[in-house]
Parts: sequence; C-alpha cells; structure tokens
Amino acid sequence: MDMNFATRMDGVKGSAIREMFKLMADPQIISFAGGNPSPDTFPAKALEEIASDELKKNPAKCLQYSVTEGYGPLVLKVSERLKKQNILKDCDKVIITTGGQQGIDLGTKAVINPGDGIACELPSFIGALNCFRTYEAQLYGVPLMEDGLDTDILDKTLAENKNIKILYIIPTFQNPMGITTSLEKRIKILEICKKHNVLIIEDNPYGELRFKGEDVPALKALDEDGDTVLYCGSFSKVLSPGLRIGFACANEKLIEKMVVLKQVNDVHTNIFSQIIADEWLAKCDFEEHLSLCRNIYEKKCSLMLKTMDEEFPDFVSYTRPEGGLFIYCTVNKDVDTAELVKESIKNKVAFVPGCNFMTDVSEKTNCFRLNFSTPSDENIVKGIKILAELLKTL
Amino acid sequence: MDMNFATRMDGVKGSAIREMFKLMADPQIISFAGGNPSPDTFPAKALEEIASDELKKNPAKCLQYSVTEGYGPLVLKVSERLKKQNILKDCDKVIITTGGQQGIDLGTKAVINPGDGIACELPSFIGALNCFRTYEAQLYGVPLMEDGLDTDILDKTLAENKNIKILYIIPTFQNPMGITTSLEKRIKILEICKKHNVLIIEDNPYGELRFKGEDVPALKALDEDGDTVLYCGSFSKVLSPGLRIGFACANEKLIEKMVVLKQVNDVHTNIFSQIIADEWLAKCDFEEHLSLCRNIYEKKCSLMLKTMDEEFPDFVSYTRPEGGLFIYCTVNKDVDTAELVKESIKNKVAFVPGCNFMTDVSEKTNCFRLNFSTPSDENIVKGIKILAELLKTL
Repeated sequence: MDMNFATRMDGVKGSAIREMFKLMADPQIISFAGGNPSPDTFPAKALEEIASDELKKNPAKCLQYSVTEGYGPLVLKVSERLKKQNILKDCDKVIITTGGQQGIDLGTKAVINPGDGIACELPSFIGALNCFRTYEAQLYGVPLMEDGLDTDILDKTLAENKNIKILYIIPTFQNPMGITTSLEKRIKILEICKKHNVLIIEDNPYGELRFKGEDVPALKALDEDGDTVLYCGSFSKVLSPGLRIGFACANEKLIEKMVVLKQVNDVHTNIFSQIIADEWLAKCDFEEHLSLCRNIYEKKCSLMLKTMDEEFPDFVSYTRPEGGLFIYCTVNKDVDTAELVKESIKNKVAFVPGCNFMTDVSEKTNCFRLNFSTPSDENIVKGIKILAELLKTL
Repeated sequence: MDMNFATRMDGVKGSAIREMFKLMADPQIISFAGGNPSPDTFPAKALEEIASDELKKNPAKCLQYSVTEGYGPLVLKVSERLKKQNILKDCDKVIITTGGQQGIDLGTKAVINPGDGIACELPSFIGALNCFRTYEAQLYGVPLMEDGLDTDILDKTLAENKNIKILYIIPTFQNPMGITTSLEKRIKILEICKKHNVLIIEDNPYGELRFKGEDVPALKALDEDGDTVLYCGSFSKVLSPGLRIGFACANEKLIEKMVVLKQVNDVHTNIFSQIIADEWLAKCDFEEHLSLCRNIYEKKCSLMLKTMDEEFPDFVSYTRPEGGLFIYCTVNKDVDTAELVKESIKNKVAFVPGCNFMTDVSEKTNCFRLNFSTPSDENIVKGIKILAELLKTL
C-alpha cells in the first residue's frame, strides 16, 4: 500500500547518539559517547535477593496487571522523599513513569498542540528535543551560560513568541553541559515563566549525583503555588536504567491528564520492577548507596578532568561539573565536531558532537560532550590521550 | 498558573473500566469486569529461578540501558514464531513494545493526523479507542456480526470517508464480544482495505488462547505484499501482563518510524523482563504452557456458559467464544446496562456495560461484557446466579 505517515514524522529522526551506539559495536572503541551509569553502581546482589523473594512470596502481585498511577507503596516512598525536598506540595500528585523519558512525553502530550512553542536550554537533551518534535512543537533555544540559561533572552523569547507553552530545563548537572543553574537564576526563571504563563518541565535525572559543592533547591521546590512546574525524576542513574522506573510530580490536574495518557500508552509501568525498587528502598540505605555512586563518579570525573588538563591543547575549554555524568568541551577554532568525530572513531575514541544537542541539528558546532561514568579508569586516560592527539592536529 | 491543555485532551477520559476497578476495592465484590489473565497461568516458579539466575550471571546486562528495538534474542524468538505463522514476511521487522497497548499507540502516532479517521469494530476495545482519541482521530464504528464486521458497511464507510487511514480490528476472540472473524471475511476485509489504501492494525492478544474449533490465519498472514497490516501481539495473556512485554510486526518502513517514536516515549522496554521472557521461552515448553492456559480458560468459560444457560432469563442472549477471555451479553429489553451495573454492584457483582466499547460512549446500550478468566470457579457460579436474579427483575 501507499503509506502516508503523519506530518509529525516529517521532522523526526532517531537519536544520532543511539545510532552511533550501533556503529560502536567494535569492542576496541573507547566510548565517551554514552550516558550510561556505571555498572559498578548497580546493587545487583540486593536486587537479586529481592526479585527472588518477591516472586516466591507474591507471584500474582508481581506478574498481574496493576494500576496506571503506579505501585502504591512506591508512590508513597517517592512522595515522602519529594516532600522532604519541598518538591511535593499539598495540591500535587506523583505518578510512576516508564523511565524519566515517559514523564517528559506524557507532559508534552497533555499540553502541546501542533505549532505551540517549547523553549529550552541551548544545547539540550536530544531525547527531549526529539520528543517535542513528535508533537510538532516549535523549538526556541535559549543560550546556556555558566550559571544557567540567559534570563534576559528567555524573557524576550517568551514575550515575543506567545505560542510558547513550555520551558524545558535540566537545571542540575545539565545534559550535555554539566552546568547547574544558580539559585538566583532559578528564582528569576520561575518569575519569568509565571509572568508569561509558561509551564516549566524540570528534568532532574542527575540531581542526586552531586559529588562537590552545595545542593541548590529544585525549581519545583521554589514554586510556592506549586502549579508552574512539572518535575520529572528517575531511578535510572541511582538504581538501574534497565528497570525503566521514573516518576513525575506536579499539580494533580496535570498528573490526572498524564495518567489518562499513560493508560493508553503502556497501561502501567512494569509492576515486578516497581516492587523490586520499592523493597530495595525499604531494605537498603538509599543515602549510603547514593554516597557510593557519588564517590565513583567523583573519581571518574576528576580523573578525566586531570587528564584533560594535562593533555588537551590550550584552545579547548571545558566545563568542570560538580555532579552528573557529563563534561562539555568547546574547541576555540573553526572546526565542525560532526566531522571531527569521524576521525576520532577511526582512532577508536567516540564522543557526541554538539550539533546533536541543538534545536537545529544541521547547525555546525565546535563543541562536543564527554561522558565519564561508563568507561573504565584505564580507558578514560587512554581515550583522552588519543583524543588530545587528534585535537592537537587542528 | 492558568493551565491550558492540548485540544487532544478535550475528548479523552480515563477508562471507565479501570475507574471501576478502584470502586471494586471491596473484596466481597465478584468481578466479571476485568480482563486479567488467571494467576493460575503464571509460571511463577520458573520465572523466579530465571530472574535469580540471570541477575547473578549477567547483572549489568539485566540492569543497564538497552536498545529501543528490543532485546536481540527475544526479537529473534518472536520473529521465528511469527514466521512459522506466516505473519512475518521478508520485508517486515519486529519491535518489542511495552505491552501490546504500546504497539497500538506507536502505530497510531506514526500515521494519524488530527481529523484523520479510524474505522473499528463496534463494539471495540476501550484502550484502543481512547488511544485513538488522544491523537484526535475521528472514529467510525462498523457493526460486528457473528462472523466478523459487516463488510458491506466497511466498504461503504471507507468509500464515503476518505479521511480514514486505519482500520483497527481484533479478529480473534474479539474484546468485548469474543467473536472470531471468519477466513472468508478476513480475505474480504483485506481486499477492501487495500482498495481504499487503509492500514489495518490487527490486535491479537488472545489468538494463542483457542480452546475450541479451528485456528484461522491472521489477517497479516493473508496479506501477500505484507505492507497493509500492522500486527500487534503480546505476552500479557500467555505469560504475564505485569512484565509489560508486547511486540509489533509490520513492513520495516513502519517499524522504523515506531522505533523512533518509542525512543522518545520510554527509550526501551524493561530489559530485565525481556531477558526473563527470552530465557523462559528458551527453557520451557511454550506449547505445553499454552495448553495449560487453554485448559484453564476452557473450563472457566464452559462453567460460566453452563451456569448462564441454566440461570439467565430467555431474553438475554450471549456469544459462545472458542477462546479468549470474554462473553458478551445482550439484554433483549429496553434497558440501559450503564444503569443496571450500579444495581449489580450493590448486589456485589460487577461487569462492564456495553457503552464503554462504543465510539460514542454516551450511547445507551443493552449489552454488557463478562470476563471468565479472573474469578474463581466458585465465584463464577455464585456471581452468575446473583446476576441472573437481577436480570429476571427486568
């Protein structure tokens, strides 16, 4: 038959990063391209015992259909934690999602009509940008500075483009830049969005991974009315991404819409995994586990930065994150990193060129993202040295 | 803030059935309302051993991010089975989905623009109809007869409404009617859809649950070109719904679009559950397990039908399914079953009124759906007797 796809498919391509993963099947390649947590952080033994116990004790509960909102005890535990962080307000509700990504997808689907605008940090997370494209949103990039996005440009952008209904932001250990938005800017951003009646989607998958500096309150925690921010969190970086457990917290009116959309999307999140996560939170010391994760990432990040400091040529500058998984590099030369990565892969080192994080992916950039959580210590040193040699030829 | 939802949310409500589940927290209520498989069919012990083994042997593989298309070995096993059933053609691909529902959602999202039409059986599955509503599709119901939908009306509907791009159909043990479309009608339906360039979404979650009569080939198996049908299957009714594992098979051009949409929806299906399902298929005798499921459902269905034959008044007629989970009843009186169910719940018996399966849910119907897979044998007899008493008062 003559297949006509929906117009939403016109502007949508798969994530170039995920495509790159396939090219990198070569085990000899040192990959700084991924965003995977370190397998060393997986509490596999504890999860194995819990999985086995629960399937023995409550097989029907683990294997039967469940409710769309999420497994009650897990919803409660997530809610308690969010309440302590001042993120959950009285008028809010929590929904368990199939990974943090689903929270972004459901929130966007509930709010965005074709042609509506979504403002975002520039650069930003490719998975969210591609999601917005599938709802035919117009994307408006706002440059990201050292302390968060440029609030003057944000205000101007929202004032000039009345179609903008959402600001998408990763305020803590941003992907790809690793930057954390300052408290001052968070207050300012909230004020601007309230003024323009714009919903903030606060994506915070890395917030618990601070290994340096002081915690900054979530935007959602600063929102006194509690109805301007949709907060999306995840267990992917602090427990396991394979289990696909995230959560969203927002005013109950919005969460109710997201529940309806989730029902027709995947009915409910894998209940066996929800039960495992819930039991793990009940039995294990989450704070201790977070400390372990933070220690691992602090070491890996320090090692990568130290090697970069020693090896990279002067014309390459980079961020020095206080948490998360990524370092962002800028080559202060006339270079297209989308071309550079091809050379680099020939030398068996992979990274993600900056163009993938732009609202216009055809834009040339002189930037690239490095991930420090996945490679081994040995490969961090080896890979950075190889990359430095390539950079020096520019 | 003043929250403006997308127009797609205007016509969308949650599933009344799932809402009813919450009302039925009362453990005294005998529920014929659900669509849950019997927990007696869950191979819990085998799954427990596999889950434990795999987490011990391959913790990083079970817990790390995975690919959007699905776990390779599972994709292969599903593909082999679909090839044997002549469903998978050379130009086709398979994607693992988060339950069968996600296959419907992604297929619809890839094809439907707001205002496009979707034809469906009348009555039909509420989860699919609600999904279509979230993409602002116009729904066109085609009456379901004893041997499948009315093909004359289908042809006329597609001829008169050029905006129709999809026919959604559950040809085997239909939900809610339990009816199976005849081979003759399948061929006719395929011919009509090809003529009008309409994509068929063939939803087949119950096809493996035949306990009587002869298998009929899938519509997808009858489609020689292999590009007119998107086939959606599921492990929910033959392994476990809680694990949320479904699959879709179609021409690779369509599957590629669905992969892109899945990537921005939930990245990938829970990998731990995919590995469990794959190992279970490798180690256990799937045919033997299906026999066990079929035996359980044959007994339950026979018991319910026998009790209905004995107890129900003459003015109630009903389908006699050869598989699946549902019996559909018609009260040949001027009665609104949406009102009747309120009385019935007072008497501690729940069923789903027919209006929930209509394209226009405000339509009054004299029909209702009974599920025989979930209640115990004792409750089947007890509940049908209570319901019969209520029906006799009409």
